[in-house]
Amino acid sequence: MSSFAPASKGGESANLADMKVFFPGIEKIQYKPDSGPSDTLCFKHYNASEVVCGRTMEEWCRFSVCYWHTFRGTGADPFGFPTLIRPWEDNSNTIDNAKRRLRAGFEFFSKLGVKYWCFHDRDIAPEGADLTETNKILDEVSDLALELQTETGVKLLWATCNLFAHQRYMNGASTNPNAHIVAYAAAQVKKGLEVAKKLGAENYVFWGGREGYHSILNTDVRAELDHMAAFFKMVVAYKEKIGFTGQLLIEPKPKEPSKHQYDYDAMTVIAFLKTYGLDKDFKINVEPNHTTLAGHSYEHDVIMAAKYNMLGSIDSNTGSPDLGWDTDQFPMDIKNCTMIMKTIIEMGGLAPGGLNFDCKVRRESTALQDMFISHIGAMDALARGLKCAAKLIEEKVMSGLVEERYSSFTSGLGKDLADGNATLEQCEEFVLKNGEPEIASGQQEHYEAILNYYVK
Amino acid sequence: MSSFAPASKGGESANLADMKVFFPGIEKIQYKPDSGPSDTLCFKHYNASEVVCGRTMEEWCRFSVCYWHTFRGTGADPFGFPTLIRPWEDNSNTIDNAKRRLRAGFEFFSKLGVKYWCFHDRDIAPEGADLTETNKILDEVSDLALELQTETGVKLLWATCNLFAHQRYMNGASTNPNAHIVAYAAAQVKKGLEVAKKLGAENYVFWGGREGYHSILNTDVRAELDHMAAFFKMVVAYKEKIGFTGQLLIEPKPKEPSKHQYDYDAMTVIAFLKTYGLDKDFKINVEPNHTTLAGHSYEHDVIMAAKYNMLGSIDSNTGSPDLGWDTDQFPMDIKNCTMIMKTIIEMGGLAPGGLNFDCKVRRESTALQDMFISHIGAMDALARGLKCAAKLIEEKVMSGLVEERYSSFTSGLGKDLADGNATLEQCEEFVLKNGEPEIASGQQEHYEAILNYYVK
Amino acid sequence: MSSFAPASKGGESANLADMKVFFPGIEKIQYKPDSGPSDTLCFKHYNASEVVCGRTMEEWCRFSVCYWHTFRGTGADPFGFPTLIRPWEDNSNTIDNAKRRLRAGFEFFSKLGVKYWCFHDRDIAPEGADLTETNKILDEVSDLALELQTETGVKLLWATCNLFAHQRYMNGASTNPNAHIVAYAAAQVKKGLEVAKKLGAENYVFWGGREGYHSILNTDVRAELDHMAAFFKMVVAYKEKIGFTGQLLIEPKPKEPSKHQYDYDAMTVIAFLKTYGLDKDFKINVEPNHTTLAGHSYEHDVIMAAKYNMLGSIDSNTGSPDLGWDTDQFPMDIKNCTMIMKTIIEMGGLAPGGLNFDCKVRRESTALQDMFISHIGAMDALARGLKCAAKLIEEKVMSGLVEERYSSFTSGLGKDLADGNATLEQCEEFVLKNGEPEIASGQQEHYEAILNYYVK
Amino acid sequence: MSSFAPASKGGESANLADMKVFFPGIEKIQYKPDSGPSDTLCFKHYNASEVVCGRTMEEWCRFSVCYWHTFRGTGADPFGFPTLIRPWEDNSNTIDNAKRRLRAGFEFFSKLGVKYWCFHDRDIAPEGADLTETNKILDEVSDLALELQTETGVKLLWATCNLFAHQRYMNGASTNPNAHIVAYAAAQVKKGLEVAKKLGAENYVFWGGREGYHSILNTDVRAELDHMAAFFKMVVAYKEKIGFTGQLLIEPKPKEPSKHQYDYDAMTVIAFLKTYGLDKDFKINVEPNHTTLAGHSYEHDVIMAAKYNMLGSIDSNTGSPDLGWDTDQFPMDIKNCTMIMKTIIEMGGLAPGGLNFDCKVRRESTALQDMFISHIGAMDALARGLKCAAKLIEEKVMSGLVEERYSSFTSGLGKDLADGNATLEQCEEFVLKNGEPEIASGQQEHYEAILNYYVK
Repeated sequence: MSSFAPASKGGESANLADMKVFFPGIEKIQYKPDSGPSDTLCFKHYNASEVVCGRTMEEWCRFSVCYWHTFRGTGADPFGFPTLIRPWEDNSNTIDNAKRRLRAGFEFFSKLGVKYWCFHDRDIAPEGADLTETNKILDEVSDLALELQTETGVKLLWATCNLFAHQRYMNGASTNPNAHIVAYAAAQVKKGLEVAKKLGAENYVFWGGREGYHSILNTDVRAELDHMAAFFKMVVAYKEKIGFTGQLLIEPKPKEPSKHQYDYDAMTVIAFLKTYGLDKDFKINVEPNHTTLAGHSYEHDVIMAAKYNMLGSIDSNTGSPDLGWDTDQFPMDIKNCTMIMKTIIEMGGLAPGGLNFDCKVRRESTALQDMFISHIGAMDALARGLKCAAKLIEEKVMSGLVEERYSSFTSGLGKDLADGNATLEQCEEFVLKNGEPEIASGQQEHYEAILNYYVK
Repeated sequence: MSSFAPASKGGESANLADMKVFFPGIEKIQYKPDSGPSDTLCFKHYNASEVVCGRTMEEWCRFSVCYWHTFRGTGADPFGFPTLIRPWEDNSNTIDNAKRRLRAGFEFFSKLGVKYWCFHDRDIAPEGADLTETNKILDEVSDLALELQTETGVKLLWATCNLFAHQRYMNGASTNPNAHIVAYAAAQVKKGLEVAKKLGAENYVFWGGREGYHSILNTDVRAELDHMAAFFKMVVAYKEKIGFTGQLLIEPKPKEPSKHQYDYDAMTVIAFLKTYGLDKDFKINVEPNHTTLAGHSYEHDVIMAAKYNMLGSIDSNTGSPDLGWDTDQFPMDIKNCTMIMKTIIEMGGLAPGGLNFDCKVRRESTALQDMFISHIGAMDALARGLKCAAKLIEEKVMSGLVEERYSSFTSGLGKDLADGNATLEQCEEFVLKNGEPEIASGQQEHYEAILNYYVK
Repeated sequence: MSSFAPASKGGESANLADMKVFFPGIEKIQYKPDSGPSDTLCFKHYNASEVVCGRTMEEWCRFSVCYWHTFRGTGADPFGFPTLIRPWEDNSNTIDNAKRRLRAGFEFFSKLGVKYWCFHDRDIAPEGADLTETNKILDEVSDLALELQTETGVKLLWATCNLFAHQRYMNGASTNPNAHIVAYAAAQVKKGLEVAKKLGAENYVFWGGREGYHSILNTDVRAELDHMAAFFKMVVAYKEKIGFTGQLLIEPKPKEPSKHQYDYDAMTVIAFLKTYGLDKDFKINVEPNHTTLAGHSYEHDVIMAAKYNMLGSIDSNTGSPDLGWDTDQFPMDIKNCTMIMKTIIEMGGLAPGGLNFDCKVRRESTALQDMFISHIGAMDALARGLKCAAKLIEEKVMSGLVEERYSSFTSGLGKDLADGNATLEQCEEFVLKNGEPEIASGQQEHYEAILNYYVK
Repeated sequence: MSSFAPASKGGESANLADMKVFFPGIEKIQYKPDSGPSDTLCFKHYNASEVVCGRTMEEWCRFSVCYWHTFRGTGADPFGFPTLIRPWEDNSNTIDNAKRRLRAGFEFFSKLGVKYWCFHDRDIAPEGADLTETNKILDEVSDLALELQTETGVKLLWATCNLFAHQRYMNGASTNPNAHIVAYAAAQVKKGLEVAKKLGAENYVFWGGREGYHSILNTDVRAELDHMAAFFKMVVAYKEKIGFTGQLLIEPKPKEPSKHQYDYDAMTVIAFLKTYGLDKDFKINVEPNHTTLAGHSYEHDVIMAAKYNMLGSIDSNTGSPDLGWDTDQFPMDIKNCTMIMKTIIEMGGLAPGGLNFDCKVRRESTALQDMFISHIGAMDALARGLKCAAKLIEEKVMSGLVEERYSSFTSGLGKDLADGNATLEQCEEFVLKNGEPEIASGQQEHYEAILNYYVK
């Protein structure tokens, strides 16, 4: 059975215009390591200024709140109407409502103690009657954002354009079969880059939720990918022209909303970038919930992208392994968090990227304080992961085992093989002389036990 | 990245009140077996009055259109706004809009040539300020439905209550942790049964999209299942009290929107019904897209339910095997359709159930005629499946092979085993005397080749 | 590409007959909580005699080693030959080899410090030329097993018959289309029950790896399930006749090796047992790796079976969520272990069931000590889980929240609903009087944060 | 529960040496389009010399039998012993047995009427005591293969080395952490290329079943991929040196036997090849069962690889969408076969690649004739697919719709966008002038109905 389109909720008016404090009962979240299990409105592990592996936790984590889920999410799902009623919302598409919501956002970021936020253009400002008006609204609201950024010290980790929600993009944006729509997306991105520059965005992200196909029967996949590449080249040119210095990022996702998305996973994005000569201009924004939907283990794409120097930023969330869609849950698993933070430490930090919480409270988590509890829980989980990873790295037990495991490549034929200086003939000669190799245990359970030792 | 709540679309007013014909360019769909590939607005296989295996196609198929997708679907998805703009909609929640839509519906059913429809209470009539008003609205709109049914001859295959879309049901209806909400659901179902009776519904369905859990941490699963059983017992009692004679059905689904739904699949529903003594009162409404989400093959639950005399009706649709969520696509695969129709013929017909198209046009299929093309495509696919299955059954090649395969149970120890008259001791004695059994090929590929012969 | 049948390895002879110690460098595993990360040959958490929640760890855990993986596994997989070369094996199917292997097993159980083991009949003793000879061999080897049990104090958690590996069972055992083969399986189980009785097995398990179908085209599923039920009735009768008092258990698995297995998951088994009146005679042996393959969360079937008083025992292992087959890995995830141990404590202990390690070292973990390291890692993980769960339960933070959440069912209409004393009419009356219910946050993230507090 | 290592079957000796005919009751398979459903030992659709779209069926299809499944498969699976007893096997690893088996193979190829076969080095010839002896045996057996090729006219579609079954490769071949093992693999491939050249192989395949990881903890993924690339460069150099002109191919698979395989899918392989400058030297051998295991639709990788001119050959098989492992079933679905053949026609043919049946009879399909029935069923399915695709292409109904859909890119701004000659500024200007684009239905159901028209 049955999908339902949420009805619009009736607008409560009231004296919202006078609203000054949006989270009245909640103060700046404190670090209280010894508070008990019931108090989930404080940090027990995340201590921003605490130094780990030579940097503060804040520097390692570079936490960011996403505006779309946390300030535009309504709790609606394909089978249900909105559940998340926010006191600052009048359910209108007015600029006033947009600005009030933005003020609520910055109060939230500040009280939570994160230094970054992220948004889509259409999250922060409604569309107008045409592009001219839309851009004008975006200018006005982003002016307020700039003001609030300055006031609070919260910075923009990345901006992006929403090229998937509007009806016009239902068949894709840069890969739309209609050139007029591709042009529309291009015009929108032009403005998006300008706003990103204005707000000092450290990165700019492309997520191609509608760049793919529902039916391969009606789709010319090669033409669409060629168009996508041409689109990105226009972006690079314009970025350079206006002197926007943020890192461009592509965010892979295998499917949903499309049946197949072209940016399936990290390696697929690399294939695309290499094929079209764009690999110097883009890095990857990995979202672990997308990684697992592509059939990989949680940390896989983060590690693969990092190893090829293509990891730009992380949309730090999680899914449920037993569900086949994107649930965008808050990351709460300490082992997973340890693996992510281990990779970040090993690559020397994520900057200019960060850990953006592309997460949403469950639609049943309707209390205002659930917004805090959820983010705190995830920040604590990643802070625990950071501490576990730091100790794991510093004590070198595991890395020493790995180094030993590959030590045969540091000399002799092994070195030649690694350096590309060997031939099949040499290898044959070596084997004829040295016979059957020794076989060593992979010791997986030993490694797992060591990891469990550090994951606390 | 990112889920968006669809904004409400601006309402186009116009003289909708005067609208009399809703699908002006489209006449009653004809059977034209020799029309070519381009003409998809006619039947090439479904010929309602054609006799197959002793009954008309119409009698075997008992096709039904679902009101929710086809008349309430907007094309909105978790990442996008509505795309399906219908000329009869003014985007209001008024009774006038509801009635106009209903008239459009019956024009559609009639032009398509189906004899049944299905709905949720909230599909056809909006909620009012409180239950009293809501019920009054439902009375008024269902009066019109009755009138249209009489006028067109289209009948109600089944009715159901929407116990999942409203915010109050976010934590379940009959399994809600709050007794007040359980009571609300009960009150709603009471009215639903009354309306079902009024409209002559041949069945009444329960789909428990929110009966399950998102987090097992906050859930007392046993209490919830006990409550669900108690709820169903109230339903049975009231059904008998008012003399509603429709068959009660439970529709399994493993997950989505809940992380876990209690009615996981056909066998799980049977376990529930048996555990609580409800197996005489309920049958199962199988939806193949739910079956595949539960990890089974397309036809599995249809066959299992049929074999235990628990198959009540079918929500005839399909998913994509590479997607992990409910896509509710129109069934277009002839092999799958053959397997479904084979089961239906073998059980002697589905009545009082039917083949309800719990399917939605893709959100990119925005043309009005796509509503027809999609249903026609599916009706033709099932009609082809019916013809293939009929020939497969009548020629007895495959059933003869199966009969032979199990023939050892028709006499001797085999018969005793089948009849429950054997003992382990007898079996041992038999083996000691007769030694190692012969092993026969399962011949899977031979069966598959035979099936391919019939699937055309 | 390509599946390979492993070739048989050449047999090393040597003076195996004189072998007395099988794990020469390894002493009884000690509890050393303060040993560092590198030492994985000691327990850091499992302290058998330590009392938790009123019982010793040993009593709660009832750990068992499975004989098949740990002493019969070769490391062969569908794409590779054996990798696990054990010094006590001469690669023959002789009784001597079987006995020597059994001695190695009991040395392993003892040094590891577990009190239980499990086996299939064909694990411990090879098949002979016919059933008579096979049974004779089984008598001889099980006599040694009894002796070793007495000598070491290690007991038999459960026995089972291998009704799936032999060619004769390729199309099923109790559900085979050939009655002769059903009889063969029955004869084998008769002997299996006798041996179980002799060795004091506390349970007897049925795993139906071939009871299901590969192709539904050649299968009469209803006949096969009827036969399976009749088979189990013979088992119950014989069990009673010979006075075997162990608990009978069915182990669900959704698929693999069959495409579909009839014992899909816990609820499916309950449906089967209820349908055929066998629910008083059987309980369920849940394997979490099977639970996840059926699309559920790790702990789901353990909890569901426990709540319906049908949880008999647990095959304690884990899979990889990104893999679609049974990997039988050692459970190492502390959160999962906490959830399992929480359920066990809440049901008052698993006895006569236990935690059987149906796990295998990776085929790359070729060192003898990997056998210990893997089991120790898992025992420690479950011991950590036990300690975490005990604290979680004793402090009542989470259970208190759950109790409060359902408190509306303890009085008034809520109590009537729970007790089955309400009617739809009463519910309607209640709602008309009391209006719209309050909606409470489900607080999932709050619960998750609390769980993370306890999982250490 | 429980994996079992198959025991070796006792060898039946007999006068195998005198065996001359291996499939005595079976003649060359004939094309009998009007034979009924029961006769599955003839072609009903595949008519080798029939011309379709300007070529014979034989030329389009280039069918190949794989030696590993069809002549080395035993029916053993992780839970069961061998089931497929072949009369020509004496279960020894002797050269005589290998040669007799090869003769049986060529009789099978000839009677079936395929023009190609494929093998791994270790399929056709057993390993000796050391590499020298192994190579000598391979020389001797491949001499016979050459002779049989000449005699029968059956050619070698591709050869490959088995770098995964032997214990030494358990942690990978070219990506093994031990350089000695990498050298061993290199030596083996050197010989493999020489044999491929001798036998006139039209392609040479690498399938990296062990090139990947089980645990990312013990793995240096970047080092391993660097080593893999260096290995392939040695291969290219040696191939050129000896003048072997076959096309080199990589066969992607996402997982199994490894938890993660580096050659995950087509795009991942392209990323690898581009990253290491190998994209001119290798193409891709796509196996649809691997494609679906990677989460794509059946035809996805075939189409993607073809569109980037990287499709080298196809391992034509299928899986079950409800199973999470490689089942290597014979392709029997006419819709899937139509999509594959449509792609092949559109790319102008697969040569030098072909349609290799990397398929195995079910382990329950134990009769000798099941070997034929299964291949015939698949050949017929692909021949039906070819005929359907040919008509679909020739009538241009669908391609015309697609062309029209993208027609806006043939002139004006659309052409500039497609040609890479546009800028974001131009696009903005265009939108400011032309306003909101028209939105056209994607018409998926219309396309599906058209496809169903052609799939017969």
